[in-house]
Amino acid sequence: MPHISHTAEIMPESAIRKLTPYADQAVADGIKVYHLNIGAPDIKSPDSAMKAVRDFQFDHLPYSNSAGTYALRRAIAEQYYKPIGIEFELDEMLITVAGSEALTMVFQAACDPGDEVLVLEPFYCNYNTFSLMNRVELVTVHTDIRNAFKLPSIEEFEKALTPRTKAVLLCNPANPTGTLYTKADMLAIGELCRKHDLFLISDEAYREFCYTDEPYFSAMQIPDLQENVILVDSASKRYNLCGARIGCIISHNKDVIKLINKLAQARLCPPVLGQVATYGALSAGADYFEKVRAEYIARRDITISMLNEIPGVYSPCPQGAFYTVAQLPVPDAEDFCKWMLTDFRDRGETVMITPAAPFYKTPDTGLDQVRIAYVIEQPELRRALELLAKGLKKYPHARA
Amino acid sequence: MPHISHTAEIMPESAIRKLTPYADQAVADGIKVYHLNIGAPDIKSPDSAMKAVRDFQFDHLPYSNSAGTYALRRAIAEQYYKPIGIEFELDEMLITVAGSEALTMVFQAACDPGDEVLVLEPFYCNYNTFSLMNRVELVTVHTDIRNAFKLPSIEEFEKALTPRTKAVLLCNPANPTGTLYTKADMLAIGELCRKHDLFLISDEAYREFCYTDEPYFSAMQIPDLQENVILVDSASKRYNLCGARIGCIISHNKDVIKLINKLAQARLCPPVLGQVATYGALSAGADYFEKVRAEYIARRDITISMLNEIPGVYSPCPQGAFYTVAQLPVPDAEDFCKWMLTDFRDRGETVMITPAAPFYKTPDTGLDQVRIAYVIEQPELRRALELLAKGLKKYPHARA
Repeated sequence: MPHISHTAEIMPESAIRKLTPYADQAVADGIKVYHLNIGAPDIKSPDSAMKAVRDFQFDHLPYSNSAGTYALRRAIAEQYYKPIGIEFELDEMLITVAGSEALTMVFQAACDPGDEVLVLEPFYCNYNTFSLMNRVELVTVHTDIRNAFKLPSIEEFEKALTPRTKAVLLCNPANPTGTLYTKADMLAIGELCRKHDLFLISDEAYREFCYTDEPYFSAMQIPDLQENVILVDSASKRYNLCGARIGCIISHNKDVIKLINKLAQARLCPPVLGQVATYGALSAGADYFEKVRAEYIARRDITISMLNEIPGVYSPCPQGAFYTVAQLPVPDAEDFCKWMLTDFRDRGETVMITPAAPFYKTPDTGLDQVRIAYVIEQPELRRALELLAKGLKKYPHARA
Repeated sequence: MPHISHTAEIMPESAIRKLTPYADQAVADGIKVYHLNIGAPDIKSPDSAMKAVRDFQFDHLPYSNSAGTYALRRAIAEQYYKPIGIEFELDEMLITVAGSEALTMVFQAACDPGDEVLVLEPFYCNYNTFSLMNRVELVTVHTDIRNAFKLPSIEEFEKALTPRTKAVLLCNPANPTGTLYTKADMLAIGELCRKHDLFLISDEAYREFCYTDEPYFSAMQIPDLQENVILVDSASKRYNLCGARIGCIISHNKDVIKLINKLAQARLCPPVLGQVATYGALSAGADYFEKVRAEYIARRDITISMLNEIPGVYSPCPQGAFYTVAQLPVPDAEDFCKWMLTDFRDRGETVMITPAAPFYKTPDTGLDQVRIAYVIEQPELRRALELLAKGLKKYPHARA
């Protein structure tokens, strides 16, 4: 019998999907499960996305350009980025199979096996999977829930540097913490990258989900850093087109773009129908984002106030994305999340949330924390948080 | 300025797309270019594919299951594979982002960096790119145009084995040669894999394009090899849905499936709209494939007879896929292919074909060979091959 690769040993299960079988069982038992566990919102996509797909005529479906259709690239550049002050040539952008493929390609461009990437902890857990696939080491810089997961001092980054450090990877606003890094933060990180010749990989998939009055400051806007910045973006959350699998990579660095073009050619092209849907979505105006933003601010406010009213629970107030990380009065949040699915019921209902420990790489960190995605409608959200409060009251291992 | 990874140095340009700028220039100059260079056929997809997309109602587009929708997996298993005698459990199959992603995932499951995979040469050139990305070494076993690229003796494979050999990768029918491996061939390869504990990675994307009267014999049908076989398949060519980006991996090996599930979860899901199109395509009956097959046989017959009528040209008669590799009376086929685009014109027309050398890994091999994809309508195909004949007559470096 042939032996599987060592990747099987080092690759973790998806932290986010690990509890799914328990949720499935609960549903099979007739229980209603409120899902605060994954970033799969219920918000409507722009109508123009559906219309574009419905109107798309084809009698067969050929490959598009490996870098994506010209029409989509031009529309993204001119209709989306230009109005927010980010400009680039069309050949400095490639359409990817969502942010996931973009991240894999960027790891391959920035790093050889054994190289290191600095990342703020807690971080989107698939960063870890993508780095393991490419034998790249993530080196973490800790952020603290009691300091609202704010950017640590640049000295903390510098302490983590080694000769193999090739890049800083930042998600802004951040999944899972909802932290929004300010212009001052971005300039400081830019200075670090310039000083130490590091790539700055900026994952801006949640750019339209910012809840302060400050204008969003993209890594692409850091002065004199154009050789260092690689932007990773996605249509998934922006237009709630997660299933379209469309994202992009943008960089002014010609070597990076040249290599990523080769990787893109090898896999032939990004999904054509997803490109059609995204092209359609782009005609949505600023009012689309405004409505979505207002809805998320309302949901966030409900989430944070209800969480902090529960005895022993603490959550900082996130300024972006649609997640928050909360500290619970339990010794082992994973056990609690599982217990909620297997044991807790209130009028035939329960709630699914995600333990936060898998978003940390440092062992035994974040064990009492959970990630909550506020992606359901307000009345449902209130009920889900009420269920969480009731669950914590009944949970046999609760500290409070 | 940060340094790009060494991947930039080792990753070749796409051999198939390298001449594209010259073709673009010819078109810009008003020249009509016949494309025999890429496997992008003009055949219609089943109407049911388009209908499924047009009828698909969504107000947002969530992720599907990482392994693909249950509906699509069941339809593929029951409507496509079961009738051709290939059976498996639904959890032994995962939907992938076409054959491209499937191959990358399978390399990661079968190999660690530095491991080796045996492949018949010439081979689909992106096997090389995928192996380089994963730091896997392709070790070639030579096949000869004068022997119609038939399977060499198993001793040739055994000579190429080292302690790091983990798998045999076979494309059946083969791109670029059109070779169809027989049941006896497959049983012999199966025996080799069993004896040496190798995975057999079987790329069967062209399974429906077979032009003999023998029934197709899949690697999945080799007796007692279920722990070794990993099937890679694709909807791209079968239904001419290249742009849908839908393929799959099937294996009875639980460890392989478990690892690939983890890789699949990391990238969240395959394209949802492509899954919808493919689900629709599956209701096409056997008559769809029969019509397509008849058309390709006619095209193949035109191609092979016209090629072999050109002085100094030799092409074996392929039994599958829609490619053939031909030997031309030129010292450097790449130069000839480029010259056809830049210098040769006949009534304002020329033809684009692909040099075959990039399909060989062994240096200085196949330099006088080209790959021809017979993917255009018969009258156009005749004219394109006439242009090739005329070009060879005029080409200043022709040997004939």
